[in-house]
Amino acid sequence: MHNLLVAQSGGPTSAINATLSGVITEAMIQGGIDRIYGGLNGIEGILQEKIIDLLDHINNTMDLDKLAQTPAAALGSCRYKLAKPEQDTAQYRVLIDIFRKYDISYFIYIGGNDSMDTVDKLARYCRSQQIEDIKIIGAPKTIDNDLMEIDHCPGFASAAKYIATTFAELERDVAVYDSFGVTIVEIMGRNAGWLTAASSLSRVNGNRGPDFIYLCEVPFSISRFLDDIRSRQSENRNLLIAVSEGIRDENGNYLSEQTPGNRPDRFGHKDIAGTGGVLAQIVRNELGCKTRSLELNLMQRCAAHLASRTDLNESRLLGTKAVQCAVQGQTGKMATLLRLPSKDRYRIQFAAADVSLVANREKTVPRQWINREGNGITREMTDYLTPLMEGEVPVLYRNRFPEYFTITLE
Amino acid sequence: MHNLLVAQSGGPTSAINATLSGVITEAMIQGGIDRIYGGLNGIEGILQEKIIDLLDHINNTMDLDKLAQTPAAALGSCRYKLAKPEQDTAQYRVLIDIFRKYDISYFIYIGGNDSMDTVDKLARYCRSQQIEDIKIIGAPKTIDNDLMEIDHCPGFASAAKYIATTFAELERDVAVYDSFGVTIVEIMGRNAGWLTAASSLSRVNGNRGPDFIYLCEVPFSISRFLDDIRSRQSENRNLLIAVSEGIRDENGNYLSEQTPGNRPDRFGHKDIAGTGGVLAQIVRNELGCKTRSLELNLMQRCAAHLASRTDLNESRLLGTKAVQCAVQGQTGKMATLLRLPSKDRYRIQFAAADVSLVANREKTVPRQWINREGNGITREMTDYLTPLMEGEVPVLYRNRFPEYFTITLE
Repeated sequence: MHNLLVAQSGGPTSAINATLSGVITEAMIQGGIDRIYGGLNGIEGILQEKIIDLLDHINNTMDLDKLAQTPAAALGSCRYKLAKPEQDTAQYRVLIDIFRKYDISYFIYIGGNDSMDTVDKLARYCRSQQIEDIKIIGAPKTIDNDLMEIDHCPGFASAAKYIATTFAELERDVAVYDSFGVTIVEIMGRNAGWLTAASSLSRVNGNRGPDFIYLCEVPFSISRFLDDIRSRQSENRNLLIAVSEGIRDENGNYLSEQTPGNRPDRFGHKDIAGTGGVLAQIVRNELGCKTRSLELNLMQRCAAHLASRTDLNESRLLGTKAVQCAVQGQTGKMATLLRLPSKDRYRIQFAAADVSLVANREKTVPRQWINREGNGITREMTDYLTPLMEGEVPVLYRNRFPEYFTITLE
Repeated sequence: MHNLLVAQSGGPTSAINATLSGVITEAMIQGGIDRIYGGLNGIEGILQEKIIDLLDHINNTMDLDKLAQTPAAALGSCRYKLAKPEQDTAQYRVLIDIFRKYDISYFIYIGGNDSMDTVDKLARYCRSQQIEDIKIIGAPKTIDNDLMEIDHCPGFASAAKYIATTFAELERDVAVYDSFGVTIVEIMGRNAGWLTAASSLSRVNGNRGPDFIYLCEVPFSISRFLDDIRSRQSENRNLLIAVSEGIRDENGNYLSEQTPGNRPDRFGHKDIAGTGGVLAQIVRNELGCKTRSLELNLMQRCAAHLASRTDLNESRLLGTKAVQCAVQGQTGKMATLLRLPSKDRYRIQFAAADVSLVANREKTVPRQWINREGNGITREMTDYLTPLMEGEVPVLYRNRFPEYFTITLE
């Protein structure tokens, strides 16, 4: 028996199920795979033997299409870090026992930087134990677009398309009153400003786009920010401003940490969001104009009804690629896609990268893709982002609402 | 010359331009109307003679279709209250002078309760001055669904469809981790909980729907709220909770006023949002579980890409009806729609209501449409809401993003 196990990990996106769909499809058509198992709640659930036979839940190829268009993680997720295999092998022994019990020859783990850390460690452990008949492959995803060794990350483009579409709509909403004001939109991204940069893509079809864009890669200066706003005050309209949640001041302190109400509670939790709210309070205090802040929050990562078709297609194919890598005998790799140099066409190539080059690293926005003033982006960024937005996924409506796929466990 | 003037007022919605499109279309095909003027920024702009010839901006009927699918107010809006005509006639004299200058025989004002106050006062003024050749008609809109004398308000159903769709997506997002937690979603509505109730519509297609729904019509008890959450703690999953921004405690105080950081700034402004944040803080402090709050904010009223076709169709037809009322010689009326009693079909009728019965009043959710525990809705609410969700508007994509209509002023 050669069975395959697939699981999902990290934050949800609109595309992680597309990759799952690609994995299942390729595993079905590959000759040598007998059963296709799904691990629930990532590696944490697998450690508890939460494993289902996926073909019990997929009735036909339309289910695979529906799964590919469904947001979040159909198998559930986890945030779980394995110990270093060089220091503590207990969990690895449990995992390998479970893999043996289910005759797992191929393990595909779909996730971001932390999940690639799991792939890396598990592959290292197998190597150290001369376990050669279990192939471990990562499939990338993250709305943050911060993985190394890949041109852009599955899930990112759909979130970006949601953000730019929402900006085009917000722009109309905030423009209706004939007076000066400021609307600050906080976008996900602690250390990488890719998603915030995507707000600029709303500058099509006669839209104005955001007035200013502040990415977390550039130290944030409150006085320059206020000057930017003042410079537009005479235009007598509502400014629309995009900011990364992770912007930091010149001393490296997160703006969000300055939230007045942001004290840890009695359990020690602290609210990390609030950058937009902090900035709005500053503008209100300093300029006295009508100011509003809003967060795109979870919506930006689960609004599957606005997914990029390019993103979902590529995400599916990365699932395909991951299975092929495993079947071909590779291990400790991540399925990846590269952009080929081309003057006037968007061309990509699927490949495999060494997962150790991906795990725990972050790819941030190059400084030269941000304008000199640090309040906007450059042409290079637009050229990079635009092809990723191509295409829409027809929303499958049933009973008046989009229909998504659910794996129902009794 | 018999000319028509149309303007928009109050908060933006996804449907207020559909009504504008209906007004323009009907004015074009009605025999007796010479020119179709648009007043910019509502009555406030009209007082400053900000008036454009709308047919300079509409090239063909496709533009009218595109306008109907465009969120916010293409003519701009205002929040402006006229003095009582019995007390101060100065502004009315200015308005009538401008109307005379442009040969306005018909004035259509699209808006909510406050805008109907403008219609009512202007009609009263005209009556008091025996001005009989200017007909003043209101066309309704408000996402809040709180207008009297109408079954449901243009713009409401599209916002409701956005909210229910977003809940179906959020439900998947918050479900990925296998642990207890609470996600609180704050929905617009200071005094009427209609939109919050619409979150329940996500209970189709295998979705679970919100675990609890708290409308502002029922005094909010923090202890009952915490008990509700505790009662589900054993289910070991993330609860999804819908709350109206306007929930008040037993003493009538807004929960949002209890925001720690919610102090007026040095200009006296106070942030009115924050109900979800306050509740999240309470849950975190009392139960110590992972808690998150998010606001659907402006997105719920401008996400035109998720509009209800029923809503946009009816909104357009209410514009048609408003013009017909004016041409037929009615004044001081609001075009309205009534639902006819019918066992198994959704049947409506267009009509005209006396605008004085609408102005400054609010229709809240009947107590019997909320469950006894005050944490959910009843079948009557579902039956009322469901037919309004019928149908989707095909999103017009251009350059990879939805294309909306803009009236470009040089």
